[in-house]
Amino acid sequence: MPEIVVLRWGHRPQRDARLTTHVALTARALGASGLVLTDIEAKEIKENIEKVTKDWGGPFFFEMGTPWKKAVRDWKAKGRIVVHLTAYGENIETSDVFQRIKACGKDILIIVGSQKVPKEFFSEDISDFNVAIGNQPHSECASLAVFLDRFFEGKKLTKSFESAKMRIIPQKRGKKIVGNR
Amino acid sequence: MPEIVVLRWGHRPQRDARLTTHVALTARALGASGLVLTDIEAKEIKENIEKVTKDWGGPFFFEMGTPWKKAVRDWKAKGRIVVHLTAYGENIETSDVFQRIKACGKDILIIVGSQKVPKEFFSEDISDFNVAIGNQPHSECASLAVFLDRFFEGKKLTKSFESAKMRIIPQKRGKKIVGNR
Repeated sequence: MPEIVVLRWGHRPQRDARLTTHVALTARALGASGLVLTDIEAKEIKENIEKVTKDWGGPFFFEMGTPWKKAVRDWKAKGRIVVHLTAYGENIETSDVFQRIKACGKDILIIVGSQKVPKEFFSEDISDFNVAIGNQPHSECASLAVFLDRFFEGKKLTKSFESAKMRIIPQKRGKKIVGNR
Repeated sequence: MPEIVVLRWGHRPQRDARLTTHVALTARALGASGLVLTDIEAKEIKENIEKVTKDWGGPFFFEMGTPWKKAVRDWKAKGRIVVHLTAYGENIETSDVFQRIKACGKDILIIVGSQKVPKEFFSEDISDFNVAIGNQPHSECASLAVFLDRFFEGKKLTKSFESAKMRIIPQKRGKKIVGNR
């Protein structure tokens, strides 16, 4: 199964703190290997996510501060592909873009923006595919979730996270956790 | 096709403003009919979402201030069902909960929380089903996205929104919008 890493671009301190946290939680819960928050440091978010991974298991990495161009260049240098999630891209449902991505069989860097993204993101230099989870105003968190769920075909929803101190036992009613922080 | 409405509980002004906006955008983009923000007024979010619906089409309603108990009671009084999305619930992948929900063939109120939710949400009085999109710490935005995408089987990603002033024409590269605000 190819590996997926998420690149979060355009995080604005304050305004985006919780959304970036949610993007990272989504990435982890739905099977990505890690998240790169580019161009900026957000120590509190990193600590939050690393705490989640320490308690609930991994592996999942949170990297920050890398310039986005370097992150993309290093990724592509190893022959891996870049998918840019954008409402302007090819519709995952009406086009064959998803099949083309799957057919590559390669590890994927998924770019999710927040504020308006640089035009370059759409170019061949950066993105191999521009993909829309529906061509409507959207949440990057939701788009990422749908892409990961479809890509991994639900398999990651059953995975055992390594070195987890705590684990939820699914219940019809109420809450059941085993283990301790 | 049954209808889905989202109930957003526990919105904290300031802290949750952008997340609630993203939950509403997710609901709209992925095929829900509307969102009820319970127990609280958030005029700015309502205006934002109504502006999106005015520009990009609908129908999609944003209701706020309704006490959550009343919203649930009114919903259930008409024989419709309530699904509570929670990391503690039955796993959508390893259990048959999704098939049981689909088999009901009924309209659904999806409850998504933010802060720690009242214990009552898990009880039969409130939720017909407690569903986990994986039993891991999660984003309510992501859980909602996956549930809607699976429920509507992607069909809503191709839907034409009514009375849209603007429309995106999907592109492999770049942005194309027809229409005007």
